[in-house]
Parts: sequence; structure tokens; C-alpha cells
Amino acid sequence: MTHETLDAGATLPAEAIDAIERAATAAHPHEELFSARAANIKQSAVRDVFDISMQPGLVSLAGGNPYLQSLPLEKLGQTAARIIAEEGMTALQYGGGQGTEELRQQICQIMAAEGITDALPENVVITAGSQSAQDVATKVFCNPGDVVLVENPTYVGALNTFEAYQVQVEPVEMDDDGLVPELLEARIAALQSEGKNIKFLYTIPNFNNPSGITLAAERRQRIVDICREANIIVLEDNPYGLLRFDGHPIAPMRAANPDDVIYLGSFSKIFAPGLRIGWALVPAHLQRRFYLASEAVTLCPPPLNQMLVSAYLRDYDWEGQIDTYRALYAERCKALLSALEEHMPAGLTWTRPDGGFFVWVTLPEGVDTYPLLGKAIDAGVVFIPGAAFSPADGPSNKLRLAFSAVPPDTIAEGVRRLAPVLADAIEATNEGAPQ
Amino acid sequence: MTHETLDAGATLPAEAIDAIERAATAAHPHEELFSARAANIKQSAVRDVFDISMQPGLVSLAGGNPYLQSLPLEKLGQTAARIIAEEGMTALQYGGGQGTEELRQQICQIMAAEGITDALPENVVITAGSQSAQDVATKVFCNPGDVVLVENPTYVGALNTFEAYQVQVEPVEMDDDGLVPELLEARIAALQSEGKNIKFLYTIPNFNNPSGITLAAERRQRIVDICREANIIVLEDNPYGLLRFDGHPIAPMRAANPDDVIYLGSFSKIFAPGLRIGWALVPAHLQRRFYLASEAVTLCPPPLNQMLVSAYLRDYDWEGQIDTYRALYAERCKALLSALEEHMPAGLTWTRPDGGFFVWVTLPEGVDTYPLLGKAIDAGVVFIPGAAFSPADGPSNKLRLAFSAVPPDTIAEGVRRLAPVLADAIEATNEGAPQ
Repeated sequence: MTHETLDAGATLPAEAIDAIERAATAAHPHEELFSARAANIKQSAVRDVFDISMQPGLVSLAGGNPYLQSLPLEKLGQTAARIIAEEGMTALQYGGGQGTEELRQQICQIMAAEGITDALPENVVITAGSQSAQDVATKVFCNPGDVVLVENPTYVGALNTFEAYQVQVEPVEMDDDGLVPELLEARIAALQSEGKNIKFLYTIPNFNNPSGITLAAERRQRIVDICREANIIVLEDNPYGLLRFDGHPIAPMRAANPDDVIYLGSFSKIFAPGLRIGWALVPAHLQRRFYLASEAVTLCPPPLNQMLVSAYLRDYDWEGQIDTYRALYAERCKALLSALEEHMPAGLTWTRPDGGFFVWVTLPEGVDTYPLLGKAIDAGVVFIPGAAFSPADGPSNKLRLAFSAVPPDTIAEGVRRLAPVLADAIEATNEGAPQ
Repeated sequence: MTHETLDAGATLPAEAIDAIERAATAAHPHEELFSARAANIKQSAVRDVFDISMQPGLVSLAGGNPYLQSLPLEKLGQTAARIIAEEGMTALQYGGGQGTEELRQQICQIMAAEGITDALPENVVITAGSQSAQDVATKVFCNPGDVVLVENPTYVGALNTFEAYQVQVEPVEMDDDGLVPELLEARIAALQSEGKNIKFLYTIPNFNNPSGITLAAERRQRIVDICREANIIVLEDNPYGLLRFDGHPIAPMRAANPDDVIYLGSFSKIFAPGLRIGWALVPAHLQRRFYLASEAVTLCPPPLNQMLVSAYLRDYDWEGQIDTYRALYAERCKALLSALEEHMPAGLTWTRPDGGFFVWVTLPEGVDTYPLLGKAIDAGVVFIPGAAFSPADGPSNKLRLAFSAVPPDTIAEGVRRLAPVLADAIEATNEGAPQ
């Protein structure tokens, strides 16, 4: 990981950096060996600021890291010790490519808590986070030039994965209730009339990353019906679903549509991302292809990590821990929204999420948030510019603020630091002056 | 994972099973959504017998599992406990996509022990075993239809990975000293004269899986020179290099050729496969593309697993443990070779490896080992049929025996059980009768 892109963020566009790097390698004859897809594999803007976010003194509202301090680490350590001492022959050895039977059964129980009551362990494939499940889905379904539909905005890591397979990523607009069914339907019709092969719709219906927006319950079946009618699979990514601040979860689209939806879950937000354990619940008729493609990349998910998750689900109050997280993230979200009310200049709007990790801020038209990142870092705060979350890669007047990893006081301080940077940019835009 | 292929092994060819499965899903309109590459993603024959190998009473000479019983599990458990209790905020959180700096430095020291003395941590990318590094290399370099050269025979998992990218895998013959330079040169010339794009040569120079053959020291530079001249990258996979029974390692091809070789290493054989930690040492001019492609699949390798490996390399006598493994595997290899001498019928030959996990047995021409697997299982022993290790997928008169996971007495018993199955097959072939 390098800081070049970031340090040069305010002056050098990404294309210029790419050109410099290409020039550095162009002399080598290996340059001609790269695959066509290699040019499409880019650094994620989130990873870009990963290292710099760790600098002391800087308030990072950039990374969507879960807050792990509330985990019972001492006890988890003892659990890991017992697994290795007593079951090390299994935990440290190669395991099955689909994941352990025990964990797949437990995952079915977790999904039941979200409203999916008919999942079978044999249709669960354990993956390296849900990131890897996105990769497998694209591998199994997409030829170069095929279309993947996404919400606009959507998760930057998914965009990077899709683009690595040379697919055409087509964003569909959301409103405050999430993806708009009529716009989805119109987009599908337009693309299919051009002869495009649309393979799947990737959607984060609960507390979308980066927008925080939730797809309204009454729209969900309609979205699935539209996709079924057009023979398009729904790839429902739900890492934050259990982290709703209040009330009960809205049933996932998968719940009533077992044949139409590949459902992705993850322990990254409800337990620990560093274990890299996620899963896909795959329709029975797609399971074998999905599982083989997953196995071909890594042979098997790490048994030690799976057994630690299993022990956590079996022997710990994991549901109580989720309640702790919900209260914690609700408090932090409230702190962020209050600070935005208090400090932000006129002309800004932002979302008010019901759960998850993110608030999405919209600046006035004409303000590009990417060049503001360098100025924000100088002011001691980091965010992710909106352009990262859209396949278009053009200028964006949006930015993502993550409240998950930062205590309320620090959130407020971060917003205080950010406000004048945004105010200056708005003023400069209003005056028509260069920023 | 299912046993269908195996149980039906003696009667149903893989194509028939595929056809049955296709028929089962063909009714669903999703069938038309699969990518072209999905049809190329197959079950590995090794994974096929993974579950059945675990059945009590059966002697498995199939899986190349390392023998973990000699690891200090109690102490390793305490190390994991300390990492989680004291450094859990790092171990359980997202980490850098390239892997931790500490582990990449330690990996450079391991490679120095094998003869690579100029490796820099910034050119090391940590991956989910070297399996994942093979996947990344194919992703970064290969378009559909490009050619990958492999030794014949070669690692079945690598074949599966390459075929998932729709490459043309071209085997080059070996003799007792490994890949034959003249045959490599001729094959490259022939393919390039057909206008083929050859991207890399995948080779396991030390104790090749499955053959156990080592590429002679005096051939190594010649192989690299041939590839350099043709602008073909060498992908040198060396998971067994430190497991030479006697004497010093032969210098890897990477040692004297930092710009021409991507070197793959793994902790699966020298420590623990269940952690799924391997690495690629990538030429500086290829590092960025390789690293980004790796990150796009999993975001980051699991920090807990990396920290456990780092602690093992820092605080344990890992070199002493490798000496233990060398003596252990040498004894088992000797037991296997003795049992083959004692029990095998006339007409068979086999390799005599200097290290690693495998012996490669050749039966007389005309005997196909795939239909023998079912009979061997009935006799209480499992092996891997030779067809798995060649892209051609046709009948093969070879089979792989793994000695790594089984004590000497059990190895001898396995060979005793296998011998009559092979003798019967040879007799039936000699009589021209159906087997």
C-alpha cells in the first residue's frame, strides 16, 4: 500500500498517477503479458486511505471498521487456545472446501433471526468475507461485457470486484426508500433492448454502504419480481442487517424467494472482520457451480477461524453482543447527526440511517469532493469522496462519513474540523473561482 | 462436497455425471446465466476423495496432508490466546491488503534459507495459501485462449485454477531430472509459430506434486533463459523446498533471476495448512498489479493467522521443526519405497523422491488407473488416479501415492492392500479382457 494517491490527492488526478506508473513499467517486455482484465483492477479508495487513517491525531471518518473494543478478548483468547490445544489436528489442517458443517448449521440459525427460515446447511458456502463471495458470483456468472446492475451509490469493494471481470456496471438510482422499482424496470428494459446480457442485481438493502439508506419493506418483493421476470439473479448483500438501531429487522428479499436470490452474510460486522469469514446462501440449483468456484481459489476457508466463530456462536452471548453493538452504533450515529446539524454550512443535506455504519452527505451541485480530501487531511480529518462509490468515476458532490469506529466526542471533533473545509469549497464554487 | 463421483468411480465417467447434473438444472432459466468459464470449473480429484479418505479403517495414500502431530499445540494455543488478548484490536480487525510488514520480513528470511538473498518485503504479497497466488497470477496475466505451460504431470489444484480462466494448458514432458529444456524450447517455438500467447510456465521444481521429481540444478538457469528469451514469466511454486530429506536445498530459479520469476511459497507444508497463509515474491515491475488483484478478492489476508505465523517464526524453533519433518517424511518415504519393492507386481515402476510428500507409480501401458480407484476403496486403500494431474483428462496408467500423513506401518498395510488390485488390473489388461 502506498500513500502516493492520497498525498497527491489535491493536485494529481488518479489518471495521472496511473500514467506515471505505466511509464515506469512500460520499458519491461512483461508489460505486454498483462491480461485485458488487469487494467480494470484498481486500488479501492477506501484502501487508499487505510494507512493514513491510522495516523495519530487524525480523526478518521473514512473506514467502516467495526468497534471491537467491546469484545471479550481475554475469553476469546482462551477459546482459541483450547481449540488449538485440543482440536489442533483439525483446526490447523486442510478442511472441506464448503466450510464446516457446524458453522453452516449455525449460519442457518443466524439467518433465521433475520427472517430466512428455510435455509439448509448444504446450500451455504463459507467464503473469505462476503467480498470473496462477490468475486465468486461474478466469476460464475459474468462474461466480459455482461451487465451487473448496482444501486447508486454502492460498495466500492464490490465495484472493484465486478470491474476486475470486465463487466459493464450499470447504476440504478435510489431515493430515500432505496432502489426505485420503476427506474430498475426501465433500466432493465433499455439494456435488454440493446441486447445486453444482464446477469445480476447487486444490492445492499439494509443501511447501504455508503448511503445508509434502507430499501423499504414494501419495495422488496417488487424488486425481486422485476428481476425474476427478466431472468436476473438478485445478489443480496446484508452485512449490516442485524445492526438496526431499533425494532425488528425487515425480512431479506431472500426470505420469500429461495430460488431467485443469492444471499451474502458476514461475521465482519457482527463479530470480527480480521477472521475473514463470510458466507453465501445459494439457491439449490446454483450451489454446485458456486461452491466449486469458491474452492478453486483457496481450497478451503481456514478451519481455525471457522471453529473460533463456531465457538463464539455456541458458547458466548453473541446476541447480547449484537445488542451492545446496536446501542453503541446508534449513539455514534446520533452524535454524528447532531454534529452535522451544529457545524455544517448551509446547503448540505445528509441521510439519517436506521442502522449500519454510514452517513452520506450531499454538497451543492458543482462541488467535487475528491480534491477536498487533501485539504481535510491537512485539517486533521479523513472521509471517503463520493466518486469512489459509483462506477462512473466522475466528479461527485457526495462524501461518506463512517461513525462506527470513533467515539462520539471524536466524531464531533472530526465534523468541527471538516466543516470549514466544506464551507470554503462551497464558497469557492459559488464565486465560480477555482477550488 | 459429495461422494457421487467417487462412489460411481468404477462405472460412471465424469462426463456422464456432468451430464446428469446439467439435466437436473437445465430446467431452470438461470442455467443460461452461467459464464463461459463456469463450465471449466471442476471438482479436483483430490478434493473428491477428501471426505472418504477420513473414513475409519481406510488407509489413505491420497491426500498430501502434512503430519501435524509433531507441532507444539499446547504452546501454540497459548500464543494464540496472547495474541487475541493483548493484540486483539489488530488481530481481529481488517488489515493491510498486502499482509503485515512483520510477516513479509520474516518470509524474506525463510526465502534466504532457500537461496533467495535479495528479496524485499515490499515485493512480497501474502495470499490464502499459494493456491490463491496461482489464481491471482492467472487473473493478472491470462485472457481466455492464452497458453499456460505446465510440467506433465503437475498439481491438480493449479490445473483447476488455470482452467477456470479458460486458458489453454499445455503440458511439457519431464524425465527423471525434471522438465526437459529441449522439449520446453520446442513446445514454445511450436506454440508461438501458431500465434499463441504464452503467458507463463508453472513449475514445481522441488519434489513435484505428484511425481516427486526434482528439476536438476544444472537445468534451472537454462529453463529461465528459454522463458526469458520467449518473454514468458516463470511461476515457480516451491511449497516443499525446505522438506528435502538430505543435504542442502538447490537454489530456486528465482534466486539469480529476480525479474523473470514469480516465486510462490507456503506455510502449509512447513507449519500448518489450516491457517491458509502463503505468499508470492513478485518482480518489482509486476508487484502493483499482482497486489491489487489479490486485494480485490479478499480485502486482506486474516491478521490473526498472519500474527500466529509471525509468532511461530519469532518465538519457536521453526527450523528445528522442519528438521523433525524432514526426518519424519524421509522415514515414511523409505517405508513406502520398501513396501512397493516388497509387494508390487512386476511391470510397475515408481519415482524415488529426494523430499516432499509423493511417489508416482507407473503401470504398464494400457492400464487405466481411474476405474481402479473404486476397487482400491473396496480393498481398503485410497490413491489419486494419474489422470487428475494432466490437462488432457484422458486415461492414465499412473497413480499418486502420498506418504506424508500416514505412519510407516500403515503405509505398508496400504501397499499390501493395493498390490492385488493393481496385479489383477495388469493381468486383465494382458489378457485383453475388460477390466
